[in-house]
Amino acid sequence: MNKWYIENGSEGDIVISTRIRLARNIEEYPFPCRLTVAGKEKVCDEIKNAVLSDDSWGFSYTKMNQFTRTQAVSLAERHIISPEFASDRAGRALLLTDDEAISIMLCEEDHIRLQVMMSGLALKEAYSVADKVDNLIGSKFNYAYDDRIGYLTQCPTNLGTAMRASVMLHLPALTRCGQIGKLANTVSKLGLVIRGAFGEGSSPTGEIYQLSNQITLGISEEAALDNLQSITLQLIAQERAAAQKLIENVLEEDKVFRAMGILQNARVLSTDEFMELISLVRMGVSLKLIDMKLTKINELTVAVQPATINACEGKDLTARERDILRAEMVRKAF
Amino acid sequence: MNKWYIENGSEGDIVISTRIRLARNIEEYPFPCRLTVAGKEKVCDEIKNAVLSDDSWGFSYTKMNQFTRTQAVSLAERHIISPEFASDRAGRALLLTDDEAISIMLCEEDHIRLQVMMSGLALKEAYSVADKVDNLIGSKFNYAYDDRIGYLTQCPTNLGTAMRASVMLHLPALTRCGQIGKLANTVSKLGLVIRGAFGEGSSPTGEIYQLSNQITLGISEEAALDNLQSITLQLIAQERAAAQKLIENVLEEDKVFRAMGILQNARVLSTDEFMELISLVRMGVSLKLIDMKLTKINELTVAVQPATINACEGKDLTARERDILRAEMVRKAF
Repeated sequence: MNKWYIENGSEGDIVISTRIRLARNIEEYPFPCRLTVAGKEKVCDEIKNAVLSDDSWGFSYTKMNQFTRTQAVSLAERHIISPEFASDRAGRALLLTDDEAISIMLCEEDHIRLQVMMSGLALKEAYSVADKVDNLIGSKFNYAYDDRIGYLTQCPTNLGTAMRASVMLHLPALTRCGQIGKLANTVSKLGLVIRGAFGEGSSPTGEIYQLSNQITLGISEEAALDNLQSITLQLIAQERAAAQKLIENVLEEDKVFRAMGILQNARVLSTDEFMELISLVRMGVSLKLIDMKLTKINELTVAVQPATINACEGKDLTARERDILRAEMVRKAF
Repeated sequence: MNKWYIENGSEGDIVISTRIRLARNIEEYPFPCRLTVAGKEKVCDEIKNAVLSDDSWGFSYTKMNQFTRTQAVSLAERHIISPEFASDRAGRALLLTDDEAISIMLCEEDHIRLQVMMSGLALKEAYSVADKVDNLIGSKFNYAYDDRIGYLTQCPTNLGTAMRASVMLHLPALTRCGQIGKLANTVSKLGLVIRGAFGEGSSPTGEIYQLSNQITLGISEEAALDNLQSITLQLIAQERAAAQKLIENVLEEDKVFRAMGILQNARVLSTDEFMELISLVRMGVSLKLIDMKLTKINELTVAVQPATINACEGKDLTARERDILRAEMVRKAF
């Protein structure tokens, strides 16, 4: 089955993906941080039974300690689970659909962290899927919920809708024009936050940023999605204008084509260099300077991450071996 | 007519070209430095008449002040004339065959500086041609000659045979292994000198060196050529072995292919960067990593030099315009 990220998404030149994440807790259990490993396993088990009772979704269930560390990090590289969930796996479990679009982390910070990913800009569509899965689970349990403050979550910043909606944006031109700092300021006043691709505390690689709603309390899901949608559309317009202007400079055009030349020919390629170069190529594709499918870039970007290479090879390669293999994969893709 | 440098020469992967230069002076005139401009013009005229009397060689004659400065520098870039001859053109003239293989600078340091260039390693062949042209001119004039010290030249370092034989060597691997300093020491003990591509005082660009005989006095032309030939063959063997060893390192192989990728894709390319990258590509071709004709590389290397671009465009472009045009020429060639 095709993975979600190789589908062509709306505004796919700039919006790599959309993600909806809902946090839920079951009333009769303490938050995971207050549970023993056995207690967590019991919660995982109950939720598994509830979700797998409806086989129309095609979830498969895996206890996190059934994954090797490499496999777990690879899942984090693909944004299926959080980096924290990959590093501490005891008592935790994962429900995942075949196309990797819907994942449910069990006993992460909350009992349930339901996540739906779609390529391109698809906030409403992704929310609608998340809502349906949420309804399925909600029909089997009493969620921890308060009429005044909404869904109860371990971290108070999630109280209310407990929904985090985000879009992964590729903003090379705004980055190169030094506009990101200013943008971060502006969006924070509008209830949003912009940060690195791996969320809080992560630095942006490949000029990819995550834009997400900051506020979950006192706002409906619909209003939060509308707000994020409208600001995303504005950023897309700004990025496109900045890119058009940038590329008038032949030195910038030169960088785009050199990046392609290096990717097509390198024999050794680190992840960092790959991310830097593919960012330029992606901008070149967006500007129609380079004829290449964005979905191919998305697929490649996932495939060449370090743990994903190791997981695919079934062994832990050295960094140099990986850099050689990565260069080979990239040459084949181009 | 094809220029000499796009012919495929012997050992052409390492020996770019062979050059024989003979210095001659006419007995009845003082050295050029002692002549007025009118005096030089008279000498030029006499030699012209002598050379053009035999039209089997196909020389054409041009007074140096008929060339623009750009055209003259372009001739120097192609090693047809010396840089000094390009900068001070009054009273001087040039005899040149259509394929640019035989050139005669008139009233450079000496009355006659006859030069034969061939691609690859062709010392005997080039000398044989030079000797024939020398005999033609010598049959019409009395050369300044002394039985004891041979041909008289303005600079005492040329006394004797007044022959400078040289080969242009591409030595990327020996350069990268830091062997050139040691080599320079060794060859100097064997009566040879190794220096930059433009001779005395020039620095090597593109890892190209000129190896030439240092001694002209007390040695026959044949002995000097044999010596140069045998040391050239040794350097070729050393370079090939060093290149084979070097390329076992994947980081070096990576450099070769990246260089090709950049040349195939750059939109802005300076001469220095071109020389650096084409050197790597040439090594890649020698090692059969890259499938490309060396003659194409030779031709391109000549065509993209700054004054040669200007001369070809018929106007003085800015450096940036030239860098863009150079990148375009290189992309087309690859």
